[in-house]
Amino acid sequence: MTKQWVYRFSEGKKEQKMLLGGKGANLAEMTNLGLPIPPGFTITTESCIHYFDEGRTLWTPILQQIDSALIDLENAVGKSFHDPANPLLVSVRSGAAFSMPGMMDTILNLGLNDASVAGLAEQTQNPTFAFDSYRRFIQMFADVVKSVPRIHFEAILDTVKNENDYQFDNQLSLDDLTALVAQYKAVYQRETGETFPQEPLDQLQQAIQAVFASWNNERAILYRDIHNISHNLGTAVTVQSMVFGNRGNDSGTGVAFTRNPATGEKKLFGEFLMNAQGEDVVAGIRTPLNIDTLEEVMPAVYNEFKNIAEKLEDHYADMQDIEFTIEKGKLYLLQTRNGKRTAAAAVAVAVDLADEGLITKEEAVMRIETGQLDKLLHPTFDTKALDEAAILATGLGASPGAASGHIYFSTADAEAAQKDGLPVILVRRETSPEDLAGMMSSEGILTARGGMTSHAAVVARGLGKCCVAGCTAAVIDEENKTVVIDGVTMHQGDLLSIDGATGRVYAGTIAKQNPTLGGKFSTFMEWVNEMKLLQVKANADSPTDVKQALALGAEGVGLCRTEHMFFHKDRIPVVRQMILSRTLDERKKYLAELLGMQRQDFQEMFALLQDRPMTVRLLDPPLHEFLPTAHADKVALAEAMGTGLAGLEAHIDSLHEVNPMLGHRGCRLAVTYPEIYRMQVRAIIEGAIVASEETGSTITPEIMIPLVCDVDELRYVKAEIVAEIEEVFSEKAATIPYLIGTMIEIPRAAVTSDEIAMEADFFSFGTNDMTQMGFGFSRDDAGKFLQEYEDKGLLKPNPFHTLDVKGIGKLVKLSAKLGRETNPGLVLGVCGEHGGDPESIAFFSSIGLDYVSCSPYRVPIARLAAAQVAIKENKAKMSVQKDAVLSAK
Amino acid sequence: MTKQWVYRFSEGKKEQKMLLGGKGANLAEMTNLGLPIPPGFTITTESCIHYFDEGRTLWTPILQQIDSALIDLENAVGKSFHDPANPLLVSVRSGAAFSMPGMMDTILNLGLNDASVAGLAEQTQNPTFAFDSYRRFIQMFADVVKSVPRIHFEAILDTVKNENDYQFDNQLSLDDLTALVAQYKAVYQRETGETFPQEPLDQLQQAIQAVFASWNNERAILYRDIHNISHNLGTAVTVQSMVFGNRGNDSGTGVAFTRNPATGEKKLFGEFLMNAQGEDVVAGIRTPLNIDTLEEVMPAVYNEFKNIAEKLEDHYADMQDIEFTIEKGKLYLLQTRNGKRTAAAAVAVAVDLADEGLITKEEAVMRIETGQLDKLLHPTFDTKALDEAAILATGLGASPGAASGHIYFSTADAEAAQKDGLPVILVRRETSPEDLAGMMSSEGILTARGGMTSHAAVVARGLGKCCVAGCTAAVIDEENKTVVIDGVTMHQGDLLSIDGATGRVYAGTIAKQNPTLGGKFSTFMEWVNEMKLLQVKANADSPTDVKQALALGAEGVGLCRTEHMFFHKDRIPVVRQMILSRTLDERKKYLAELLGMQRQDFQEMFALLQDRPMTVRLLDPPLHEFLPTAHADKVALAEAMGTGLAGLEAHIDSLHEVNPMLGHRGCRLAVTYPEIYRMQVRAIIEGAIVASEETGSTITPEIMIPLVCDVDELRYVKAEIVAEIEEVFSEKAATIPYLIGTMIEIPRAAVTSDEIAMEADFFSFGTNDMTQMGFGFSRDDAGKFLQEYEDKGLLKPNPFHTLDVKGIGKLVKLSAKLGRETNPGLVLGVCGEHGGDPESIAFFSSIGLDYVSCSPYRVPIARLAAAQVAIKENKAKMSVQKDAVLSAK
Repeated sequence: MTKQWVYRFSEGKKEQKMLLGGKGANLAEMTNLGLPIPPGFTITTESCIHYFDEGRTLWTPILQQIDSALIDLENAVGKSFHDPANPLLVSVRSGAAFSMPGMMDTILNLGLNDASVAGLAEQTQNPTFAFDSYRRFIQMFADVVKSVPRIHFEAILDTVKNENDYQFDNQLSLDDLTALVAQYKAVYQRETGETFPQEPLDQLQQAIQAVFASWNNERAILYRDIHNISHNLGTAVTVQSMVFGNRGNDSGTGVAFTRNPATGEKKLFGEFLMNAQGEDVVAGIRTPLNIDTLEEVMPAVYNEFKNIAEKLEDHYADMQDIEFTIEKGKLYLLQTRNGKRTAAAAVAVAVDLADEGLITKEEAVMRIETGQLDKLLHPTFDTKALDEAAILATGLGASPGAASGHIYFSTADAEAAQKDGLPVILVRRETSPEDLAGMMSSEGILTARGGMTSHAAVVARGLGKCCVAGCTAAVIDEENKTVVIDGVTMHQGDLLSIDGATGRVYAGTIAKQNPTLGGKFSTFMEWVNEMKLLQVKANADSPTDVKQALALGAEGVGLCRTEHMFFHKDRIPVVRQMILSRTLDERKKYLAELLGMQRQDFQEMFALLQDRPMTVRLLDPPLHEFLPTAHADKVALAEAMGTGLAGLEAHIDSLHEVNPMLGHRGCRLAVTYPEIYRMQVRAIIEGAIVASEETGSTITPEIMIPLVCDVDELRYVKAEIVAEIEEVFSEKAATIPYLIGTMIEIPRAAVTSDEIAMEADFFSFGTNDMTQMGFGFSRDDAGKFLQEYEDKGLLKPNPFHTLDVKGIGKLVKLSAKLGRETNPGLVLGVCGEHGGDPESIAFFSSIGLDYVSCSPYRVPIARLAAAQVAIKENKAKMSVQKDAVLSAK
Repeated sequence: MTKQWVYRFSEGKKEQKMLLGGKGANLAEMTNLGLPIPPGFTITTESCIHYFDEGRTLWTPILQQIDSALIDLENAVGKSFHDPANPLLVSVRSGAAFSMPGMMDTILNLGLNDASVAGLAEQTQNPTFAFDSYRRFIQMFADVVKSVPRIHFEAILDTVKNENDYQFDNQLSLDDLTALVAQYKAVYQRETGETFPQEPLDQLQQAIQAVFASWNNERAILYRDIHNISHNLGTAVTVQSMVFGNRGNDSGTGVAFTRNPATGEKKLFGEFLMNAQGEDVVAGIRTPLNIDTLEEVMPAVYNEFKNIAEKLEDHYADMQDIEFTIEKGKLYLLQTRNGKRTAAAAVAVAVDLADEGLITKEEAVMRIETGQLDKLLHPTFDTKALDEAAILATGLGASPGAASGHIYFSTADAEAAQKDGLPVILVRRETSPEDLAGMMSSEGILTARGGMTSHAAVVARGLGKCCVAGCTAAVIDEENKTVVIDGVTMHQGDLLSIDGATGRVYAGTIAKQNPTLGGKFSTFMEWVNEMKLLQVKANADSPTDVKQALALGAEGVGLCRTEHMFFHKDRIPVVRQMILSRTLDERKKYLAELLGMQRQDFQEMFALLQDRPMTVRLLDPPLHEFLPTAHADKVALAEAMGTGLAGLEAHIDSLHEVNPMLGHRGCRLAVTYPEIYRMQVRAIIEGAIVASEETGSTITPEIMIPLVCDVDELRYVKAEIVAEIEEVFSEKAATIPYLIGTMIEIPRAAVTSDEIAMEADFFSFGTNDMTQMGFGFSRDDAGKFLQEYEDKGLLKPNPFHTLDVKGIGKLVKLSAKLGRETNPGLVLGVCGEHGGDPESIAFFSSIGLDYVSCSPYRVPIARLAAAQVAIKENKAKMSVQKDAVLSAK
């Protein structure tokens, strides 16, 4: 059998996208649905590959099949390339399997020549239309096939319009158009050295070859390289008979969505123009009419279109974006595709389609991209307002949301301004834990240094604050309270806007839209919960965080960072005095003060969570992070402690570390100062006992020891903790259940997890730190060079954003395997930033972890990602089972 | 058959140390050799265990066997516990398998009582001797068996001596002694509530139980805990008939080595005293005589002893340390053991014994502990001078050797003092690469911060300089040029001594002994080379280093750190200007200057090495390490660069990193500034081409890319390097072979080594950095808490000193396995500090690495360790083969 290189629309179907391109496959599908599609045929992508294999010539068998399809087309429409009185006109379009902007697109009106233009004029009784069509065809053909710059044609057109004082193209007279055709042909000859081809078949072959050739033009190759599309796919070419919406007031053209793409409302949404071609709608010369108006103008056509739209939506089981043309009162469809939509509409449509029975709930859940949810959960700038805003610079979109406010350069100034009721943007070179209060007082944070996992970024995401980090174009002078961006100096109090999704920084304020999480969103998230297997918990450090986390659907708290509680204004002085204590007794005195504060927090959090789990991480950062850096703070502290400033500074200096990330922190603090962890554990257990009594729930605190590198180290710290717990139990004459686990974040802990698991009830993978240590990247410093890596195509995606499965993932997988070997009941989770990243969540699910924990604002995204991976895994499992059943037969 | 709880000397042998203890086994062995050993028997270690199992009582079957052995003993010596006229006197000694200071040691003269003391006086015609013996026995028994403090007895003795104006015990008259015996017995009764036991069998049973009980006294348990000795071994008890060296001028006692323990010379070495007991020799009241003198005093005894000594040495195949007693002209041996000796003697004895055919060369090589060699290679303080030196403080013994000198607090001052001919001790809070010149100008380095792998420690070991690091007791004020140690303030120029082996810091100067590596050392090291399988290379950064490395037997250079070349006085300004260049052209200008300097170094090093390999590591540390910190240096640099100081400081500040260890360094610099590596590679290849032509050797430079974390990163950097090499080849119209490899030091590189190996000719494991990142320990900071870990028994041994096999070793092993899977020809080596550590070398050998590289001064140690592990592995292999042969039979 001869290979089929050309498919008539009636011969294809929508599944043949790889062979016929997206356009060709959909036109075939619609044809076979019996819809009014102008007839045509598609030359396959394989023909394109063959075209290159043959040294960029069209192979004879392909040409023969084109001829044959063309004869069928002529018969179908009753017109012919060779009958100037009744000429066949066609459009020629490229159509790859994936939409590719870099390629040649469309030639319309092919088939026109000096003879047939007269025939068309006669046939349509509309010579202006005929010559206008010819003029457009010459220009498109010259542009697309011969790369003649459009400017040559546009210059001529402009001259005519200027001479005649025309504003619009449709003011051109027949004489003008006849003259323009002659001039256009002259330009064509001048620029190409050839006369404009008069033989339609010749026109067609040249056009097809031009489409094929455009597959390998520079822009297309670059586009495929960037988007990881294979260079071996080729493009198809679709040849379709022309219909004209510009043949009078009984003609028209339009585009409509089957549902509202902004809200998802189930109602035709679109616009049309009478007596116009598609490009006129786009050109915006006349204002198109709302699609509803079509019901009044042409009720029969409207109803037909409405029925077709419903039929297409049912058929494709998704909202459609449909292009149509009406020629002389007859409706034709030119294209249908799944319509683009806003995040809110996407959710609403998916829920509605499932409710309507068009798709399953699983399909509905698979329809929403996790990235879309993010937009739903945060305020965004008003799209129209954005158009008028001046972009000053672009940094990293480190925490989504949009914020406008007055800029302040210190925590104190930010707090003061917020108290005065001003919206604040905190601007810092980089943030440190000291800035927490300032960040909480701000709408958004802008930093000059640091990457996606810098302190500012991590904390902002945790707080749900918008953040642009690593905006290197911002030269910040914190002393003098100025920032210079793009040559403009801004002072404290000036207005600035930042978009934490795009990383853009704008001058002044911009109007915002707040998220509205309606009933359909809730329904959707309920379905998500039904399907997901991974537990999704939130990182939460305060009662406020816990409330937020529960509201966003968290199933518990996977990471409560106790140190964040230390930074409250009334606590930090006590913390500082505790750290700088010269004797154990002195330290214990301050720890006793902190005990009450921490116990109260834990009690409230446990009471809010009731029987939902909470994992509390004991003190993790190096102690010097809590110490003052500002001179005034040092003076105040020295006074409070009754020591001289010099002595205090020397003491602080002695705590300085060359590489704090790899320094005296985490459980290392508990080896040297066991009393700190003992105080924290006492606060946790005492808080939990009270909360248990208050709520009547069984509260099981999960105590997590960070930065463990060795089983003996864990055993040592655990013994201290257990001793303290036993003391509390005995003092209170009460016991509650509790778990003790560890973070696995140090590479050595990962490779010795078989030992460590024997002392742990659970592992929580701290993939942030494991990425830092596993790659040897300091997240505070790596921003400087990782950008160059990205520019050079290295280390993509950013391993701080998406878990590096190949390296860090291997360590996590190994650790999970080793841990469960010696402790089969070991509970495994993730509390790094990756816990909120969909790709990473898929990996965590694939290696059998039990839960992920992420910022409250990432919880819905993580839930969706978990549901989607569960659906995929289930599908894969079903398919394996099916194969097994089949092979068993 | 009844279990044997008691072994007569004639029933045992030297292999039964576990059962009979070291002493008992050796006495048995000597008895069976037919040597003159006073007869006796040993109660086994198993009896000791049984003693505890039975609730601290002697089990009847054991008592019965003791009785039986005692009867044989009485028969053998013709004396009896029950014949006061001819009393049997015995010594009772503990004897565990391992020597244990914490335990009860010796009771002499057991068997004496009020009746037999008279019999002994009569029998020996020496009542003074008899009563003196009884007095000593009462005191020893009271002390050892009943824990009566010695002070009670010593007080009485002192009173008598004072009353009579005696200086020495041997001035006591018979009356004095008779009176003392009465008083001692009264003290015994007062302190114990019992009369002194008069029944010899009762004395013996009490003594045996006391020895057994002492196995579990607090000091013994602590000692075993510290030295990792099992608590279940028990101690044996040896009961031996007494001989007396204090029975007149035909009696005596002494101790002698079969060879000189200081030099190894084959000649009896020892001393003796006539008419004395062993403790008199130790007490130092009379000056003992040289063993040679015995030949004149008692020629027959001397000759008998000499023959016995030779026989023992032949039998034990090692130098012996022999205790003997002469009683009434008859020679008895009381103990023999392998003699302790100096490092120099150890080498000489091992070589001699092998030459004499007593041991094989392999055994000779196994005889020397690697730690001993270290002492041979460095100067040490004179032992006697040390006794008089005042220890000011103790830090970490970070680089062996001993140094005295004037203290200076900066590189500039140190250099100036050295030019003036002064020996210098550089005193710094911690060192940085800037201090290199100062370290080179010093005899030794003392730092207050940092651990065994701090900058100071690592560089000092590389330079062979002595270093005490992390001496926290030293409060250093670099500005005012003072250091306060132990309350004493020292100023610039004051004298100080440091011992880099022990970590001790002394006031003033101390006399030194320099190493003398004689002919026997060379012979020994030749044997080592014959046996080892691992290649041993040296880390060397300059032609001087290469000479040193070759002199110490390095088989090439495994790590040449190019950055160390940057710190030379005439180069660092160029390096700084290169780093701070604002444009690529500017940077290239300075790189061109550096090119000439580096090329010259490489050329000289390659010429020295000829066909021996050299691995050159391209620039590794973060650039800011090269930048000035001192104000004066900054001013000078700003002037040289024609920029303002403020601008320069801002630029330097912008290069600051929070965690430089995890920052912009290693091949990351080559991704952002490819021109730096290109310059270095050009210098290497050009230098190698010239050296090849000069020497006629085939020189194959091995170029090493540090800090690789990903194969794409390696591929990118390698492509730049290869392009530069091709340029050089084409310019010079010459080619030479070369290899390109990578350091594996980042955990992710280890776990993705299968990919990385596809782009690498060799891997060199950078176990220092891998330990830092694998554990999450900054070597600059970890000193602060690792000491507490060690104190608490955690993380031993220090993972920076001995490779952590369980964790980091697992990564190295995995990397080696993955790497050879995809690249079977991959060469594997180690260039971290662990490359010079014997335990680590054994591990590297066991996982099949090809070479280790270490500081030149560690090369002999590494060679020895490599030989020893090869011998052990060969033995294990032979034993497996033997088992296979046996099981096949």
